[in-house]
This record gives sequence, C-alpha cells and structure tokens, in this order.
Amino acid sequence: MREREGELLAANRAFYVAFRNRDLTALEGLWSRQHPVAVIHPGWPPVFGREAVMESWRQIVGGSGAPEIECGAVNILALGEPACVICVEHLAGGDLIATNLFTREDEGWKLIHHQAGPMPPQIAMQPPEPLH
Amino acid sequence: MREREGELLAANRAFYVAFRNRDLTALEGLWSRQHPVAVIHPGWPPVFGREAVMESWRQIVGGSGAPEIECGAVNILALGEPACVICVEHLAGGDLIATNLFTREDEGWKLIHHQAGPMPPQIAMQPPEPLH
Repeated sequence: MREREGELLAANRAFYVAFRNRDLTALEGLWSRQHPVAVIHPGWPPVFGREAVMESWRQIVGGSGAPEIECGAVNILALGEPACVICVEHLAGGDLIATNLFTREDEGWKLIHHQAGPMPPQIAMQPPEPLH
Repeated sequence: MREREGELLAANRAFYVAFRNRDLTALEGLWSRQHPVAVIHPGWPPVFGREAVMESWRQIVGGSGAPEIECGAVNILALGEPACVICVEHLAGGDLIATNLFTREDEGWKLIHHQAGPMPPQIAMQPPEPLH
C-alpha cells in the first residue's frame, strides 16, 4: 500500500514538473493511452479523448503564457482504480484547486482526468487581539 | 456492465434531485459513510471529511440562495472503484462543469468527491453559410 501511494505521489509530481517545464513529451507519456481520458482546464468546457486532451496541453504549454506552476497540499482521497489526488496549484496569479485521477497501467500510474478551478485567496492570519 | 452503468447514472441523478430539492437527508444518504470524502464547491477551498462535507451542504442547501440546478451532458469517464462521472450543471447564473466520484458500497453507489467549477458560456450555433 505504501509503495502504491509513493508511486502515485511520484506520478502526480511528475505531472507538475512536466507542466512547469512545458514538456509535452513527458505529458504525452503521463496521460493514459489505454483508457478514456478527459480534462477540465479552468474556464474551458470539458475536453474528452486523448487526441483532444493532448491538443489542449499543446495549446497551454506551447503558449508564452504557460504557467510557472507549483503543486502543494497534496491529498490522496482514493487509492483505487482510478486513484484520486486532490492538490493546490500555486500560480503567480493565485491558487487553483485540482482533482487528478490516475489509473494503473503496465508502466505505472497514468492520468485519466484533471479538473482545476479557482480557489479563494488564502485568508491572512490575523494576529490575536491583545489581552489588555 | 450496463446495470452497473445504469445504477451509477441513477445515483448521479439522485444527487442533483436532492440538491435541487434542498433535501439534506437525501444528500446524507448519497454521500459515503465508509470511505474518505471531499468536496470542492466553486470558489471554495477543498473540504475534507464527512462531517465538514455535510456541513458544507447544509450551508449551501440551507441558504435561501440554494440553486435551481439541472444536470446535463452526463458522461461516465471511468466505471471502476471509484467511478467518475463528468456533467454540466445548468444554473440561472450560467453553467458549471462537475466531476463526481462514486464508490460502490452495500447500498449502491455513494459519492466520495464532487468538484464543480465555472464553464464558459455556450457558443451560439452559427447557421451554415449559404452555398449560393
């Protein structure tokens, strides 16, 4: 179970490394070729099917505005088939919150779905009221 | 497989009926008690754990602004454990796009995760150019 979790977290990290590096070849390898796939980018309609999903990534990582993205607050919600990872995406313009679904294939965990959407700004910690 | 699909679609429909009817008791029954659960409402930070998830539903369906929601364009992406349904949520203020995850329990499919986020307005269908 721990090994399976570790491999899942590694696949999730690899996804964000590929995203940040605009590495389309890595993204192609990380997305499933054996299962139906979908992606919901923020403000996009849903995209279904490997060809359309990879085209959406080409548009996103190919543009000059490809985001400097960092992943945090990673949480494995389900470790089944598929497995579900929920994490925060830190971007210059603010945070997004993402659901990533992975399924297990011969080569390891592969992405079958990603939905990211806007997250409210973190509420700044207020210093406690002075007692007197 | 067909029966399993039909039951999954029925559970997804039941979720939106309960949502529209502000039926908290039905929502309590539709969400898993046996697995970790999470929810990402539009513009909210992620909510983890049954107690917090149900409290979020109490806030949403308990308010006077509870949405008149209709579900459409339903697509089963994965029929595993969990299963993944992607659908459009039609609301007065515009459409949302949702990922719903269900897991199979003794009583049937139960929700373990829901993420909804904004979707761009539908592009109006253009009539074809006249041929001459």
